[in-house]
Amino acid sequence: MNNRSIGIFDSGLGGLTCVSEMHKLAPRENIIYFGDTARVPYGTRSRETILEYAAQDIALISDKDVKVVIAACGTVSSALGDSVPCDLPFFGVVYPAANAAVRMTRNHIIGITGTPATVKSGAYERAIGNGSTYRCVSVACPLFVPMVENGITDPRDTVVRSMVERYLAPIKEHGADTVILGCTHYPHLEEAIREYMGDDVVLVSSGAAAASEALAFLGETNALTDREQEGSIICYTTDSPEMFYDNAHRFIGDIPMTVKKITVEQLVGKDH
Amino acid sequence: MNNRSIGIFDSGLGGLTCVSEMHKLAPRENIIYFGDTARVPYGTRSRETILEYAAQDIALISDKDVKVVIAACGTVSSALGDSVPCDLPFFGVVYPAANAAVRMTRNHIIGITGTPATVKSGAYERAIGNGSTYRCVSVACPLFVPMVENGITDPRDTVVRSMVERYLAPIKEHGADTVILGCTHYPHLEEAIREYMGDDVVLVSSGAAAASEALAFLGETNALTDREQEGSIICYTTDSPEMFYDNAHRFIGDIPMTVKKITVEQLVGKDH
Repeated sequence: MNNRSIGIFDSGLGGLTCVSEMHKLAPRENIIYFGDTARVPYGTRSRETILEYAAQDIALISDKDVKVVIAACGTVSSALGDSVPCDLPFFGVVYPAANAAVRMTRNHIIGITGTPATVKSGAYERAIGNGSTYRCVSVACPLFVPMVENGITDPRDTVVRSMVERYLAPIKEHGADTVILGCTHYPHLEEAIREYMGDDVVLVSSGAAAASEALAFLGETNALTDREQEGSIICYTTDSPEMFYDNAHRFIGDIPMTVKKITVEQLVGKDH
Repeated sequence: MNNRSIGIFDSGLGGLTCVSEMHKLAPRENIIYFGDTARVPYGTRSRETILEYAAQDIALISDKDVKVVIAACGTVSSALGDSVPCDLPFFGVVYPAANAAVRMTRNHIIGITGTPATVKSGAYERAIGNGSTYRCVSVACPLFVPMVENGITDPRDTVVRSMVERYLAPIKEHGADTVILGCTHYPHLEEAIREYMGDDVVLVSSGAAAASEALAFLGETNALTDREQEGSIICYTTDSPEMFYDNAHRFIGDIPMTVKKITVEQLVGKDH
């Protein structure tokens, strides 16, 4: 048994889709979340900057007495690949989501949506093994994160419908039966994506897939909590804790949480 | 005469609309530009974080042997107000754009577009004097910056038309004859905004207004250059210089420039 917390981080609020799934699956686990809201988004930045930010984020969350670290961020997970600057058991979203997609596809055509950095990295294709058994169709969706962060997600909204169609058309044209939502913000556009792709298509939430895989690992290694009451959720953020708290409700509903501030200076110093 | 450079900074690439105007009006001046592309956008962050970033940006640009500092960023200018941590002559975009709007309006109804932080600050209204002679109608346009940064600016694009109408409808309904483009990214949506608002409406580019006012000041204080050849443009950026260079062409055309990297660590250390 291990009563330390589960550490989860993201560039901003998207990773709360992973927190929400984790809390649903294992409500007695304590969760420490870090969202770098003073520097979000990551997905339109260079690989070099993403790796620098990721190292700082991992150092910060590792310092919080956690038993596992989950990068609930498609951009960070795909930039890191297999060289992760982390001494603790570590999970990104790429392998869990790729594994889930491979289990679920019937026609072996898998669509991948992600930020420009994620798609450019080719990480999901490598994890799936594009070209052998499976065929991957990847599309970058740079406007999805700002749309979600600004609450523009209604499937009846012209802008939402138009952007979903613009980005996902190649996936639909290639006949994918499974689509990876490769950025943890994208589940908020799930309804619009489902409406465009059709009800038969399986949508894989990368944050939820990472939560399941990390929990399975904790179970196998006998590292789940034996706490009997509900676990706590403590969030750290680089921008205003009040703004974080207010916006978090859109991502996580009414789960109780405490939000604390980390300055960018503290964060930047963490990897030295 | 003063042959030092003109310093201009912004959260990202938007401030290049000010550089472009400055270079057109005074081609022999050297320009030093700083764009904090590793932390853009600023306009959806808290006032506290914006002030922290602004202090770091001003310290950095002041250190580059410049004769004047221009915050070519609506978000920074409106957050700072009159308390500016700068020892050099300093220009934001708020007063220059407000002055231009007041000179140009005929019916005294002025529309203001800006980031959420800019609109929340009320800085343009205070500069114009809302409620006395002039009536201001302000709207926050949070998706405009990501749209411009991702090249979604075509006035025939459904998404562009829909977002312009959604944000600017209150300005049109109140019958404004002059609209301040209160963020230096927005001139890239000028055509779409003009199409929606009609040809009779005057659009004020806040970056161009700041360039004119700073140049007038340099002229009055006898601080223009006496260089006879064309001035240089040197840009510093916190993210990849290659990405900056490639994207800058969309903002500034083919003006020759040198781009150099500043790390976030160097930047964060600047205000200590």
